[in-house]
Amino acid sequence: MTTTGMRTEFQAWLEAIGSEVEAGLRESLENSSLVGAPEGLREAVTHALLSGGKRVRPGLCLLAAEVCGVDRKAAMPAAVAVEMVHAYSLVHDDLPCMDDDLLRRGRPTVHAAFGEATAVLAGDALQALAFEVLARQPDSTLAVRQSLRLARAAGPAGMVGGQQLDMQLEGAGASASLAEVEQVHAGKTGMLVAHAFLLGVDLAMEDAGPWGQWALLIGRLFQATDDILDATRSTQELGKTAGKDNAAEKATLIAVLGLEGARGYAEDIAAQAQDLIPRLPMQQRSVEIAALPTYLLERCR
Amino acid sequence: MTTTGMRTEFQAWLEAIGSEVEAGLRESLENSSLVGAPEGLREAVTHALLSGGKRVRPGLCLLAAEVCGVDRKAAMPAAVAVEMVHAYSLVHDDLPCMDDDLLRRGRPTVHAAFGEATAVLAGDALQALAFEVLARQPDSTLAVRQSLRLARAAGPAGMVGGQQLDMQLEGAGASASLAEVEQVHAGKTGMLVAHAFLLGVDLAMEDAGPWGQWALLIGRLFQATDDILDATRSTQELGKTAGKDNAAEKATLIAVLGLEGARGYAEDIAAQAQDLIPRLPMQQRSVEIAALPTYLLERCR
Repeated sequence: MTTTGMRTEFQAWLEAIGSEVEAGLRESLENSSLVGAPEGLREAVTHALLSGGKRVRPGLCLLAAEVCGVDRKAAMPAAVAVEMVHAYSLVHDDLPCMDDDLLRRGRPTVHAAFGEATAVLAGDALQALAFEVLARQPDSTLAVRQSLRLARAAGPAGMVGGQQLDMQLEGAGASASLAEVEQVHAGKTGMLVAHAFLLGVDLAMEDAGPWGQWALLIGRLFQATDDILDATRSTQELGKTAGKDNAAEKATLIAVLGLEGARGYAEDIAAQAQDLIPRLPMQQRSVEIAALPTYLLERCR
Repeated sequence: MTTTGMRTEFQAWLEAIGSEVEAGLRESLENSSLVGAPEGLREAVTHALLSGGKRVRPGLCLLAAEVCGVDRKAAMPAAVAVEMVHAYSLVHDDLPCMDDDLLRRGRPTVHAAFGEATAVLAGDALQALAFEVLARQPDSTLAVRQSLRLARAAGPAGMVGGQQLDMQLEGAGASASLAEVEQVHAGKTGMLVAHAFLLGVDLAMEDAGPWGQWALLIGRLFQATDDILDATRSTQELGKTAGKDNAAEKATLIAVLGLEGARGYAEDIAAQAQDLIPRLPMQQRSVEIAALPTYLLERCR
């Protein structure tokens, strides 16, 4: 199997389940308390959640369920919930007091289209909706396990904490240490990506075992390659403003290790993930799992 | 029993459980993922949650549990969770793009003390922590029931939706209809106050029965008297900027009915609540329940 072939298998998975995920997101909104919301808020929430994107987090969640031998349909509430949390974080991240961005996935950001106050509220609403979707599941034990996982991954020691650190280190640029950058990564994006996968594993087992280590490596690799993408791609290619990290002197891998150093760093994580594969207790879909580190690495080549 | 005597009984309840609630809030933070958060965020979250306040929502939650014959200790996670949601909503409400307020409970608001971006993140973190606290409970069925209730009450058809409507009607002032004001009230504050009570009822029964109607009346009465307080009290008495509703030409009861009209409206809801009391299935603490409508009415006399 060639490298390109491996990359294509995970991409093919994302494409194969793409319409399922979009339908899942749409149905979850239609069956949620959003239907009782004021129109302006409903539009802003819908704009934030249904505006495309690669849907990597739902894809990881559904893949994890299948790999563990569970029908992926059962993982859809968790897949939707994690994407809702991701979407809310983008809305708040784009606010003038945060990254101050007007463009996201090639479209106006929520505050650019609906105003700043509505953007704050739309983000808040999406976080509440995520926990509503999880709590509506008939299996209480599963719902609580996933709810606790998502709350921790999204909360002050997870995603939100990573964003706070990222902001505190703004202007530090190259003077930040690798350890500091790794701490930002572990929270900011890595944690939610890792737990997106583990929310799928939750359907099959109480103790994630080696999947826990695997998911954390995938999360770190995702954020590492995200830093490289920001530094090397144009605004048009990214669908969001490129080169912002450098402009804000953010504490990124590139600032600390340089571009080649960052690439080497990402390759090292990918190799660790590959080495772990034989120990993963897979039931099926092993080609997509095997292709995942390479897919992440390749996207910033 | 005099009116003043009845008022004192619910106040006495709030005072009696005050230190328990403060301890509950503090312990919940210490046992949550907040301990792993960056210091600046930890301080902002602590500032937002542990800065006093009457703790009416936790008080209602614990009272509901006792009234239904359940040890109030068992209701503490829900009491903490609802106060976390309330605290997060205040932090976001005070932001420059929302109410733009520098003073809350006589202290600097979170964005005044820690900056705007940290205030957005601290609010986000508090919402995640609320669902973490609920999900950590050993009884999964209860945890899910409360989580679903809190998500809906806080979300786009509840508190967040009410804030959106409130904002949309800004500048409308007296030209708003009573129905519009009631819709704002039902969401904005009424919903969370009502469901604070029902989170306590959840410990005792699956179907809240007449408690549902009671809680909604209490929620409406709370918001009605809040409007009156804003119009009649000084900034020093309120511990937050007074008269803001009028300045922003908000669609309040006062704008629509006038001060005396608003008082009559609140008295009418209180009377409906009093009439309902004989039908409430109480096990104990009936004097505090009986005193509640009068307490709310009296606070703005």
